[in-house]
Amino acid sequence: MTDNTILIKDTLILNPSDFKEIKGSLLIKNDKIAEIDTDIDESNVDKVIDGKGKILLPGFVNTHTHLSMTLFRGLADDLSLDSWLNDNIWPMEANLTSEYCYIGALLGAIELIKSGTTTFSDMYFYMEDVAKAVEESGIRAVLSYGMIDFGDDEKREHEIKENIALFEKCNGMADGRIKVFFGPHSPYTASKDLLEDVRWLANEYNTGIHIHVSETQKEINDSLEAHDLRPFEYLDSIGFLGPDVVAAHSVWLSHNEIEIIKRNNVKISHNPCSNMKLASGIAPIQDLITNDICVGIGTDGASSNNNLDLIEELRTASLLQKVNLLNPKALTSNEALAMGTIRGAEVLGLEQEIGSIEVGKKADLILIDTNNANMVPDSSATSSNIIYSANGYNVDTTICNGKILMENKKLTTLDEEEIYKKARKAIEELKEARK
Amino acid sequence: MTDNTILIKDTLILNPSDFKEIKGSLLIKNDKIAEIDTDIDESNVDKVIDGKGKILLPGFVNTHTHLSMTLFRGLADDLSLDSWLNDNIWPMEANLTSEYCYIGALLGAIELIKSGTTTFSDMYFYMEDVAKAVEESGIRAVLSYGMIDFGDDEKREHEIKENIALFEKCNGMADGRIKVFFGPHSPYTASKDLLEDVRWLANEYNTGIHIHVSETQKEINDSLEAHDLRPFEYLDSIGFLGPDVVAAHSVWLSHNEIEIIKRNNVKISHNPCSNMKLASGIAPIQDLITNDICVGIGTDGASSNNNLDLIEELRTASLLQKVNLLNPKALTSNEALAMGTIRGAEVLGLEQEIGSIEVGKKADLILIDTNNANMVPDSSATSSNIIYSANGYNVDTTICNGKILMENKKLTTLDEEEIYKKARKAIEELKEARK
Repeated sequence: MTDNTILIKDTLILNPSDFKEIKGSLLIKNDKIAEIDTDIDESNVDKVIDGKGKILLPGFVNTHTHLSMTLFRGLADDLSLDSWLNDNIWPMEANLTSEYCYIGALLGAIELIKSGTTTFSDMYFYMEDVAKAVEESGIRAVLSYGMIDFGDDEKREHEIKENIALFEKCNGMADGRIKVFFGPHSPYTASKDLLEDVRWLANEYNTGIHIHVSETQKEINDSLEAHDLRPFEYLDSIGFLGPDVVAAHSVWLSHNEIEIIKRNNVKISHNPCSNMKLASGIAPIQDLITNDICVGIGTDGASSNNNLDLIEELRTASLLQKVNLLNPKALTSNEALAMGTIRGAEVLGLEQEIGSIEVGKKADLILIDTNNANMVPDSSATSSNIIYSANGYNVDTTICNGKILMENKKLTTLDEEEIYKKARKAIEELKEARK
Repeated sequence: MTDNTILIKDTLILNPSDFKEIKGSLLIKNDKIAEIDTDIDESNVDKVIDGKGKILLPGFVNTHTHLSMTLFRGLADDLSLDSWLNDNIWPMEANLTSEYCYIGALLGAIELIKSGTTTFSDMYFYMEDVAKAVEESGIRAVLSYGMIDFGDDEKREHEIKENIALFEKCNGMADGRIKVFFGPHSPYTASKDLLEDVRWLANEYNTGIHIHVSETQKEINDSLEAHDLRPFEYLDSIGFLGPDVVAAHSVWLSHNEIEIIKRNNVKISHNPCSNMKLASGIAPIQDLITNDICVGIGTDGASSNNNLDLIEELRTASLLQKVNLLNPKALTSNEALAMGTIRGAEVLGLEQEIGSIEVGKKADLILIDTNNANMVPDSSATSSNIIYSANGYNVDTTICNGKILMENKKLTTLDEEEIYKKARKAIEELKEARK
């Protein structure tokens, strides 16, 4: 079999590992980055992409979402997390089917690809259908089944079986683009037994854990009431934490909990737009970074965001830290860009494969077109122009695992119109079913 | 002369005055909205725009910006307001010319039109050149000359002359699309004499006043030191305030100052992204609205934002109030949308002309295309889909004063490529001049 090669030429390459900028070209051979140089011979290349006036970045990494929930975009707004979940989301989820989750995941995949995200970490139900959407769309994913037992033994057994089945069926699927994690929903919906089982299973299967922790003040108060410990203290006390744990949200953290996170090398997924929209609170991200804790970015589901635009999420993260600390130097554009790429890869344990632009790494790459009204002039620091001025619409090319998923804003793997139609029908049916 | 007519048919009309949604058509006759109905005869219409799958809104109103500063996008980031101004912006402004300000304004006008803003309120130098850009681009504007005297009599005289000359030359220009306000820069850069002169002039010329007030904590402390009064208390004590005063920023407000603002019916321009990026603080917008104070939205200059996308600004405003008050019901999507349209018009004293969709008002209208990944499904409240999910790129048609400025994302009045080229050259020259 001959190699499949793509040359991206005459572009500005920004590598978020060191923020060195290279004016040059990049050669993709099959699924990997094969060469980076000021000039690369294009005579034997299968496909040439003109990168002039564009910025070449690693694809963004969205470390926490619920992709099928894209169906629920705007379903219920201006509500507290409690009322949003109990009165709106959970009643709708009761009628979800495998087909609906598949459509929702395809819909979300379109939005991810269009806004430059090449890897997402997901926790939800019907995850085999999400895997199918990942396979078809060409994107990369870490999938976990959201396990909730509320202390019920039978339920626990079922949930664990589901996540193991997902692992056995989907881990390594789609040319290795899919990895499976364990997904205990949270310390308040998963029992101590379930959390302990998950810890054991993650070791046994040598994979990671995806969990919501410390999203709201209520959760802290409930944890203190139930365990006399704050959420991270409780998780630490039962030996749950480790470098393979990705804790989403992590909004309300005491000094002691930051120590615990650091000591256990827990990874954090920061979700500022969701935390703002649901009025959950402001996570102490600058503190975490100063403590050398690895923080990635996540959009949460589109139902509480309400979109999956990671550039917008990174800008919001940066602006929110600055104003909250009254320090304009907090979370700089370089730090934000790293959070959306290489730090995100580290959060998911994928830093050897993705997250930066290096020879030998997977070719997960995007091109941002700077020739747009919101990015001219582009004489500033490149990371500033991306984080503070751009949004997802400035992405015009998305490549994952060496395959072009979007070129000049045209998707290559998914039929937009068809999926929009199906998604609109699905949400109408779900609303009808709830009546 | 025969009438010029445009029919926007089969669309979803959302009027932010009452949030009633009409599925129907809208007829423009010359510069005004002539008819709104479920069905309008298209046989004698000059131009028909298909509005299917789109939302028809009033054009957005940006109540505070410095359009020519679009040239300085990303010039200096992650800095305090003081250092940003003193070490970066002011040294660059020292070399500004009439031509540079004209190019900067054209560049900003492209971004405004593309993201659905049809009216902006500006304060800067070389304002006749900004007026020229407004005339050519077809947009609507309130222009003021930024007057700074620092207590120097000669300077004061010069500044006042400049603003009066601007009024006499440009007020009512461009088919009435330009109005001129007086623009004392701030209570700390304009002397008491200047402020008192401006108050008298605004009455005399029957026009408004545009001023920066209470942007940073430092400004409050300096005001307390200088006058033993907080900024709004000081302005009230010299009889400066009134319903024709637009106070930009207004971040740090005491209870007494909120009372003063209410009593004088002062209008507020909220600039959340700039306040976050420069770490100035969080304005108490929900409090102001609860007190029936009229609040519009503004981007501030692109140099501290770093873009002019008003939808993004409105979303940020909403999310920031929610998280700051830990109240998810704060600044709802309806309130935000009103802030970006009809409230903005009121701030500028233009509510009889623009800001809502009513027969007899000026045809300042935009179409938002919901058939995009970030807005599907569109089964939610329409204002939610716009504020929480969309961004400026979802705008595909912009009409101002009955003239199409953009259709299907193509500008009709300005040459993008040419202006980008000139803007890039201008900033390079300005950087060179500073060396």
